[in-house]
This record gives sequence, C-alpha cells and structure tokens, in this order.
Amino acid sequence: MSFVTHLESAIDGTHLPHDQLQTLHDGRPLWVRYDLDAVAGTMSKEKVASREPTMWRYEELLPVDDANKRASLGEGMSPMLRCDRLGSAIGLHNLWVKDESQLPTGSFKSRGLSMAVSRANELGVTRLAIPTAGNAGGAMAAYGARVGMESYVFMPTDTPIVNQAEAAWYGATAYLVDGLINDCGAVVRDGTPHMNWFDVSTLKEPYRIEGKKTMGLELAEQFDWDLPDVILYPTGGGTGLIGMWKAFAELAEMGWLSSSNLPRMISCQAAGCAPISTAWEQGDRFADPFPNAATAASGLRVPVAVGDFMIIDAVNESGGQARSAEEDELLTWAQRASALEGISFAPEAGACLGVLEQLVAEGAIGREERVVVFNTGAAQKYIEVISSRLPTLETPVDWASFGS
Amino acid sequence: MSFVTHLESAIDGTHLPHDQLQTLHDGRPLWVRYDLDAVAGTMSKEKVASREPTMWRYEELLPVDDANKRASLGEGMSPMLRCDRLGSAIGLHNLWVKDESQLPTGSFKSRGLSMAVSRANELGVTRLAIPTAGNAGGAMAAYGARVGMESYVFMPTDTPIVNQAEAAWYGATAYLVDGLINDCGAVVRDGTPHMNWFDVSTLKEPYRIEGKKTMGLELAEQFDWDLPDVILYPTGGGTGLIGMWKAFAELAEMGWLSSSNLPRMISCQAAGCAPISTAWEQGDRFADPFPNAATAASGLRVPVAVGDFMIIDAVNESGGQARSAEEDELLTWAQRASALEGISFAPEAGACLGVLEQLVAEGAIGREERVVVFNTGAAQKYIEVISSRLPTLETPVDWASFGS
Repeated sequence: MSFVTHLESAIDGTHLPHDQLQTLHDGRPLWVRYDLDAVAGTMSKEKVASREPTMWRYEELLPVDDANKRASLGEGMSPMLRCDRLGSAIGLHNLWVKDESQLPTGSFKSRGLSMAVSRANELGVTRLAIPTAGNAGGAMAAYGARVGMESYVFMPTDTPIVNQAEAAWYGATAYLVDGLINDCGAVVRDGTPHMNWFDVSTLKEPYRIEGKKTMGLELAEQFDWDLPDVILYPTGGGTGLIGMWKAFAELAEMGWLSSSNLPRMISCQAAGCAPISTAWEQGDRFADPFPNAATAASGLRVPVAVGDFMIIDAVNESGGQARSAEEDELLTWAQRASALEGISFAPEAGACLGVLEQLVAEGAIGREERVVVFNTGAAQKYIEVISSRLPTLETPVDWASFGS
Repeated sequence: MSFVTHLESAIDGTHLPHDQLQTLHDGRPLWVRYDLDAVAGTMSKEKVASREPTMWRYEELLPVDDANKRASLGEGMSPMLRCDRLGSAIGLHNLWVKDESQLPTGSFKSRGLSMAVSRANELGVTRLAIPTAGNAGGAMAAYGARVGMESYVFMPTDTPIVNQAEAAWYGATAYLVDGLINDCGAVVRDGTPHMNWFDVSTLKEPYRIEGKKTMGLELAEQFDWDLPDVILYPTGGGTGLIGMWKAFAELAEMGWLSSSNLPRMISCQAAGCAPISTAWEQGDRFADPFPNAATAASGLRVPVAVGDFMIIDAVNESGGQARSAEEDELLTWAQRASALEGISFAPEAGACLGVLEQLVAEGAIGREERVVVFNTGAAQKYIEVISSRLPTLETPVDWASFGS
C-alpha cells in the first residue's frame, strides 16, 4: 500500500479521496498528499541506493499501491552529465545536464505517463485518451500497451511526424485535429461521455505530477541530497517544474536535504508560445491564452496551461524567473550544444540554453553556481528540425581537396 | 590502470601490444585479453552493485586506463523487461527483452563507440572516421563530440534520414556514398593515409567488442549471475554477439556464474541480407559476400562481416543457430511486439522475433525456457519504416460513428 492520505485541490485546498478516479476540482489540478512522517520512518537513503535504477526506487513517495499494476518500461535514473565544454560556451564553471532523452519513448513524458497509467490501471481503467503537442501521445500509447489498455491519441495536424508514427506503432488509435493542443483537449473532453475513456491530459489527473516529481528526487540523489543553485526547465504544461518543486518540499519536510537553500527554478519557454513568461513578467498568477502559438519546440506549443498558477507560484517561491528564448536562439543552441557535448538536445532544451545565456549575461546566474539544465527529449524525434541534406561524395575521392 | 595484458589475433593467436593504436591483424580482428585472476581478486559483485548504473560499473573488465578520458553519456544498464503478452503470442512462458533503445543516441551502438572513442582518446586520437549502415555513425559523432574530437561519417545514400540528420546534428562532417556499408568502408580505408583519422569500423579496432560485451555483463547481473537458456541477437557486424560470448567466458573463468550451462546464442538476420545464416546453414566458418543486400532493418544491411568466423564460432560453441527472418515477418513482428508491450522495437529486433517464432514452432526452443531477445534500437529512428499517415478528424466529431 502507498502512503497517500488524500488529494488536495491546488486552488482551494479541498480534500478529495484518492481511492477513486479524480480529474480536476473547480477546473484546477489536484495535489497528491502523503503521510510524510510514515514515509520518513520507512524509507531510507540506503534502501533507495540499493534499489534498481528506475524512478520506482522512490516507491514510498509514489502513489501506486500494487507493484504488479505498474506500467513500467524501466523509466528513470536518467544520467546527470557534467558539461564543461557547453559551460565554457555559456560562461559557467559548473553546468550539468539531466538527460531525459534516454528514457523510454525518448522523452521525459515517460515518467508522468508511466505513473498516470499505473494508477489508472489500479483503479480499473481500460481505455485511455490524451491530447498531445508531441511526445506525450507516444508515451501514453507505449504505457497503455504495456498493460494492455486501449489508447486514443489526438494531436495537431502539424505534429512532428515521428510523434504521429510512434503513436500508431504502439498500437494507439490516433487522429490529427485541425488546431492546437487545446483544441485536441476539447475533442477528448467532448468524447469522454461517449467513449468511456479516461482523460490523462497534463494535470487533469493527479498522478502525472507524481511521475514528473521523480526528476527532482533523482536530481537530489545524484547530487548526494545537496541541491544545485539553479534549475532550468522547458515549460509546456509545466508538470515537471511543479513536480520537482513538490519533490523538494517533500524531501525538505522529511529532513533529507543537506541545506535549506532550494534551487531557483527557471521556467523557460519559446518566444513563439510564452504564456507563462508573459504572465510572470506582468506579475500575474494566471496566464492569458497565448495567441498564434508557433515554435519548432513542439512540446512548448501549449498556449493554455491549466496549472499556470502552480508554475508561477513555484517560480516565485524559489526566487526564480519565467523567461523565453527567441526561435533562432533556441534552435541554434540546441544544435550547438549537441555538437559540443554529444548529448541529443531537443529544441525545448535549446530554449533553456537561450534563457541561460541571457541570465548569465544579466548577472542573474553566477559563473560558479551549480546549474542544471533539463534536456527533455531526443533530437532524433524532431526530424523536421534536425533534417540535414547530406552531400553525396563523388568517388574516387579527391583527398587533396576533400572537405574544402 | 586497466587489467589488460595484451591484444590477441582472433585468426592466429598472435600477441600484440595494447598500449598503441591497433587495427586488424592479417585482415582479421583482435581480442582484448585481461589478467582475469587479478580482476577476480579486485572486483566483487557487491562493489559492482554499489556503482552507478552504467556499463562502466564493470571497469575492471574494461580496457580504459584513465576514467578522465572516458567518452561517456551515461550509457548502459538498459532495462531487462519481462514480456508476458509477447511471450504468449509466441508461445513462451519466460520471455525477456533487453531494451537497448534507451541508450544514448537511441541504440546499442553507444556501448561500442563509447568504449572505442574512450580508448582512442587515451591513445591521443583527435580525428575519427566511420562507415555506417545506420546507427553507428550518430553514436560515433556523439561520443566524438563528448570529448571534443572531429568526426567523419560515411553512409549509403539510402540510409534512414534520422541517421543522416543526427550525424550532422552532433557536428560530424558527414557524407553519403553511392553504395553499401562496405563501399563506405573502402572510402574510409582509402582516406586514412590522407586524413590522419582513426578508423573505428566494426571490429577493425579492438575496443568496440569490449563495449558491446557489457550487454552480456549486465544481462548476467540482471539475472543474478544465472544466465538464461537462449539469447536472440540481430547480427549485422556481429560485435554484440561476439562480445557477449566473450563476457560469459570471462565471467565463467572468474567463477562468477552460478552454472556452467551457457546460453544458446541465436544469430538473427534478415532474409534480404543473410551472409552469416547462409554460411552457418552450409556448415562454413567464413561467409561469402551477400549479393544485392536489401532490408528495412538497416543495421542488418552488412553484406560482408570481417568477424564472420568469430560469430559462427560463438554460435556453434554455444549450441545455437544462425537464422534469418523474411522481410514481411520482421516488419510485422516489430510492430506487433511494440503494440503488445509498449517497447519501441526496431526492425532488427523484429528479425529476432521472426526467428524466435520459427524456432519455437520447430521445438528448438522450449516453452518454459528463459529466453532473452535484444531490442537494439528505437523504432522512432526508422521513420521510413514506422511512418503512418494519420487521418484528420472532422470536428465536431460524430461520436456515434467514431472509430467505426
């Protein structure tokens, strides 16, 4: 059995039972709450260290009761890679990348969807639906397949072709919708009473946050429970940023952190779809829908985020910022960083690097600070972005003039 | 310092020094030999278990002297996933998949190239070259970038577009060559005296085997040092099969295995390029070049393998077989298995599943045997294969007739 005590509305604190399916309360997300004293009495750093290198090593801090109901493909413990060459290029001495491109389905979406599908599986769900801007649809289809559920995926007509193909490859029933992710969300909402599917949209069910929070738990363990100074995270729906901030609060309450200083959380978006950074810069807690959303960082093409206030609260509580990078800036950084470090940086991570460069230039991040950037997916999934027409070599090769 | 004592010609046993760059001897590959008594005296299962979940946890059995010279992106400890639904479909009760799609660059090529580039880095190499049929070029480019080397990649004109793009994304100088991988190999050989690059072709340098052998080490650890009955592996160049067989021999000599029964090694190819299975079926130790090589499993499009006799020796010593699957069989199985288990099966793994189905039907593999299939890469990298034209949903949706 898990240590979950109840669910709690993030907007008004209402308690709701966790032993039945829940979606939103008053149109806003739910927090999962645990008996942290009991967790701290059972879980130990030594136990965690002895377990398999997946996100399930933190099982006492996770909401799934029955390990046999887990939808798992071995997700988690993604590498934390020191990046001195990239650090130099940006002007930092202590830069790290948490590389989520190495998760199942090639993106960080695996964490949230593994958790959501596992919990839905426990609660008897057999049919799932999701609106997606990119990688979430493939991840849901994969985890649905892993436990034998039916999956329905709805994505914008201009979703990257690899995301379109992977959903079908994993056996989902998948459709394009002429619109953006919020239009796809409307289709899922509309179909729910007819199709009897469970909607696993970002933050519309309570457990994707719990999956994403494992990024924060892993990061803490990888730094020996001494958190870094700054974390840069690409914000679409924002579940990961919200989840990590929740993870740090839970670890602090359990007394596991070596310092009371928490990282400054930097929410990073693309200038072509920047609702959160726009709201934050205006001092608002809720974001207006972003008009004409357009960016090659498809995961950031989320014009309306139901957890807007949760993202902005976390950013502000941490002393962080919500910022955005121009389109050419994020694309240039993603490629440059991939060539500097051999990490497969997705365009979304390029937005973090663009923002990081700005903050270093402004003096808002110091050269010696410990900085972590999240790479949330594999560049290989963005073939439209990375596509390169290679020259055909004429043979026999004239080596004297080769490459010139 | 590593425990390597020397290099040994696989064809005639000649000893060669390991402290300088080596390629082939008499046109054939080299084994890396260790002082296994010394390794056994230093390494322990407990030590290994306490280390980070990468292939470097077996460092005493690896050839790199200086950990600071490693080209590492966190590769290794890929999940071993139990697959009951797929097992049922094939008629097995104890089927496992080692999922290499979750490695850096989305394929098992990471292991060999991390090791080869690390060792080249120790020996002063600054410029690398490789001929590639698919995933190896991207992996070399990534690991070269990780340690600041220059990379040159040569691939057939009809190489999957994701492989073409990733090489350039990681900053390599990359070209298409009008031919197959052996023609690309000829270009690299031809250019070596002019370009002063180090050729990291499959088995032409001694260390890619040592990287690939970590698949066998991990597999042994994941089964608590009690090896499975059968292993199915998709054979292009064959380094992984050769490497795993070497790993088992080393573990056996160190006394780490719980039984003297070693797995039957099944080499799996596509009928469209099956030089090894053709030679094995004829009882030959050396393979003829396979004419008109053609298969969507691009990693298997290797008509000439310089390690042919090493593959066939391992298969025969293990009591295994070298077989092939028809093209429609391998494609059907890759997709079907992905939808059954949510694992991102590449076409190469589909060849293993096709062969597995044949062997179960023939009674050559028993229903209760412990069987491991290698999934060597992510299906997402094969967009030409998995490409799916999704229908666009007309809104508002007529839910009464939806999906019918």
